[in-house]
Amino acid sequence: MNDVMAPQHLEAQLRQIGATRYHNLHPFHRRLHGGKCSLAEVRAWALNRYYYQSMIPAKDATILARMKDPALRREWRRRVIDHDGEAEGDGGIARWLHLTAGVGLDRDLVISTRGILPATRFAVEAYVHFCRERTLLEAIASSLTELFSPQIIGERIDGMLKHYDFVTPDTLAYFTKRPPQAQRDSDFALDYVCRNAHTQAEQQSVLNALKFKCDVLWVQLDALWHAYVEGHIPPGAWQPGEAA
Amino acid sequence: MNDVMAPQHLEAQLRQIGATRYHNLHPFHRRLHGGKCSLAEVRAWALNRYYYQSMIPAKDATILARMKDPALRREWRRRVIDHDGEAEGDGGIARWLHLTAGVGLDRDLVISTRGILPATRFAVEAYVHFCRERTLLEAIASSLTELFSPQIIGERIDGMLKHYDFVTPDTLAYFTKRPPQAQRDSDFALDYVCRNAHTQAEQQSVLNALKFKCDVLWVQLDALWHAYVEGHIPPGAWQPGEAA
Repeated sequence: MNDVMAPQHLEAQLRQIGATRYHNLHPFHRRLHGGKCSLAEVRAWALNRYYYQSMIPAKDATILARMKDPALRREWRRRVIDHDGEAEGDGGIARWLHLTAGVGLDRDLVISTRGILPATRFAVEAYVHFCRERTLLEAIASSLTELFSPQIIGERIDGMLKHYDFVTPDTLAYFTKRPPQAQRDSDFALDYVCRNAHTQAEQQSVLNALKFKCDVLWVQLDALWHAYVEGHIPPGAWQPGEAA
Repeated sequence: MNDVMAPQHLEAQLRQIGATRYHNLHPFHRRLHGGKCSLAEVRAWALNRYYYQSMIPAKDATILARMKDPALRREWRRRVIDHDGEAEGDGGIARWLHLTAGVGLDRDLVISTRGILPATRFAVEAYVHFCRERTLLEAIASSLTELFSPQIIGERIDGMLKHYDFVTPDTLAYFTKRPPQAQRDSDFALDYVCRNAHTQAEQQSVLNALKFKCDVLWVQLDALWHAYVEGHIPPGAWQPGEAA
């Protein structure tokens, strides 16, 4: 581990982090995709994840603002466009709001984020701060969880359509649009980190950035489980009994 | 709620937040003080809280760096001195390391923070970022959980000494030193926010800052409970079975 790795070895180590730490391994996702979640649990998941979704373009704009190369900015700005869309009602955030509406959540409640779990807020903000404060290499590396997202999205669409009568293909439009974007984006980011992590320390920082990002995703599911599966809802968070 | 409150009304609302959201109400603290925690759970608590303790002077230095008034800085710098001490082995952080050693944790493991829960890290960093990014009034208001700490510390010292044979008065030196400091600091901060929150919006920001800080503390105990009481330890976090 004290030598610089060949790119394919670095890629193998990144994929190994995904295989052991990505949130497809979390019990909440098994529960969600396996049809074991109550409607309240699906709502809590959709409500909390809205905050994550809504901050992704802010995170990407933070990275964009740090890039000095126009070609790199042209590549990265597509991420902002994917989530914000070309017009009102278009883009990933609008599609997530379509999902939250589809599971019966009030749009204003969702957009206000006032009912989300504090752990969701802290994890998402940790991600934005990480992308502002660490090296550009680490910020780009932290996006690499997208390497693993096409698989989980496939499991999610199949599982949710099969198990929940309140979920329709239309509700899940966010997920059907994502895999080609995630594939394109993660191909680019993987190539970037393999070409730009020259030293052992840089390669280690890339691996640590991906572990950090896996933690950001895992913490959100731990918090959902603790609050809505175990029933320890913290003060101020959304209560399934209140108006959805 | 649309009018500016009298100072005593603002203080009453702050104390009401403490009465409903401070972490003395969390089941983990009842478990800790009531003698129901295993040694592994006490160790996990001490290990994770070390990160919180160790970042408090960084948080206070962040606030200090934003103060333009020498008199205010003279007041606030005492907090940094309390935690960092006058010399090696002195101060709140050193006393916390005395506590972690007393419950059998390796000093290097503790100081490295490599085994802490990601939720602990994100919550503590959210606190530091809050004090850097919000108004000085909000940053000072977020310290007001200390209004409620003398009571919890009293419960903790009594409960832990009574219930755990591995805890001695010497181990708990951190807590015996804190109440007069917390009293002095929270008297100052309470007076400051009451004198400087002039508008309804400022008063609301003060109340929200205290709620935020209660969330920072609560999230840490939720994460301990989920990981070490329920047994869902996230990838990479300290395992009770490994060398303590």
